[in-house]
Amino acid sequence: MPFIHIALRAGKPAAYRQAICDSLYQALRDALAVPEDDQFMTITEHEAANFRYGAAFGVARSDDLVFIQVTVFDTRTAEQKQALFRRIAALLGERPGIRPEDVFVTVLEAAKENWSVGHGLAQFA
Amino acid sequence: MPFIHIALRAGKPAAYRQAICDSLYQALRDALAVPEDDQFMTITEHEAANFRYGAAFGVARSDDLVFIQVTVFDTRTAEQKQALFRRIAALLGERPGIRPEDVFVTVLEAAKENWSVGHGLAQFA
Amino acid sequence: MPFIHIALRAGKPAAYRQAICDSLYQALRDALAVPEDDQFMTITEHEAANFRYGAAFGVARSDDLVFIQVTVFDTRTAEQKQALFRRIAALLGERPGIRPEDVFVTVLEAAKENWSVGHGLAQFA
Repeated sequence: MPFIHIALRAGKPAAYRQAICDSLYQALRDALAVPEDDQFMTITEHEAANFRYGAAFGVARSDDLVFIQVTVFDTRTAEQKQALFRRIAALLGERPGIRPEDVFVTVLEAAKENWSVGHGLAQFA
Repeated sequence: MPFIHIALRAGKPAAYRQAICDSLYQALRDALAVPEDDQFMTITEHEAANFRYGAAFGVARSDDLVFIQVTVFDTRTAEQKQALFRRIAALLGERPGIRPEDVFVTVLEAAKENWSVGHGLAQFA
Repeated sequence: MPFIHIALRAGKPAAYRQAICDSLYQALRDALAVPEDDQFMTITEHEAANFRYGAAFGVARSDDLVFIQVTVFDTRTAEQKQALFRRIAALLGERPGIRPEDVFVTVLEAAKENWSVGHGLAQFA
C-alpha cells in the first residue's frame, strides 16, 4: 500500500510520465510484493526555478532527475528497501530510459493504522 | 497543528476545492480537537498522466479520487486517527460531495520538536 | 541529505523563488553542516483556492506564507532542528525578504537506510 509522489522538470511527454508510473508500479510488485493494482501516485512538473538539485555525494545528476518520495508501511525491512531502490533504478532505466544517476528516492514510513484507502476506514489497523 | 496536502485531478471549480479544505478543517476540529483556525493546507491539481490510482483493496475508485496526506504530531492515538478518517469521509461526502470510495488518506507523524509555525521558533518542543 | 518541498502562492518572480532555495541551502549548511551542494528541493506554486492558512497559535500570517517541509535523517537532535528553524527564518528574512511570521516549517524524519540518492544504492545504510 505505498503512496508515491514524483517530481520532475516540466516538458516530458505524457507517455514518458506514464512510463515512470508503470515502472514504479512494477518495482513495487517485484520488491515489495504489493497486491495487484496497488498503484497510487501523483506527479508534479516543475520549471527550472522550482527544481533544485546539487552534485552532492559524487553523483552527476542532470535535468532528467526524478525525485521519488514513497510512503510505505513501517514494517518494511532494510533489505526490502534496498531491493526497491535497485528495482526502481533498473526499471526506470529501461522505461522511460532514465540514467541511474538521475533517480533520487526517499522512503517515508507510516504505521498500518495511519492508512485509510477508502470509505473512511483504517483498513490495515 | 496538522499540515495537509491534497492532490486531485484538475478541472474542479475553486468552490469545490475550497469545500474540501473547509471539510478537512472541520474534520480536524471534530476528531482531533485542534485549535481555532488551525488550518494549513495546499492543493495540487493533476492532469490524467500525472495522477495514477488502482482498484486495490476492493475499492471502486473514480477520477474524483482525492489523495490527502496529513502530517500530525506523533502523539495521536489509533482511535483519534480512526475518528479522523471517518469524519473526513463523512464531511467530504456532504461537501463538496465526494464518494467515500474516493477518499484516500495517509497520516505522517512528526514529533512536537519538528514544527515551527512562525518566527523561527519550535513552538511545541 | 535533506530533501525539501516548498509551497507558496503563485505570482512571485523566479529570482524570488531562487532566493528561497539559496537561503534554505545556506540554512542547511549552517545548522546541519550538510556537505557542499547537498541541495535538493522542489517548489509548487498555488492559486488562492489551493492554499489555505489560518491565524492559529497567535501568528499573523499573510499571503507571503511559505510552507517548507524538510525530510532529514532521523539522527538530528532537537537542538539541531531548533537551530535550523532559527536559521531558515533569519536567512529568508534577508533573502528574499520574508517576514518571520510567514515561515512555516515541518520536519519529517527518515532512517539512513531510507535514502537512495542515485544509482539505486542505499548510500547511507
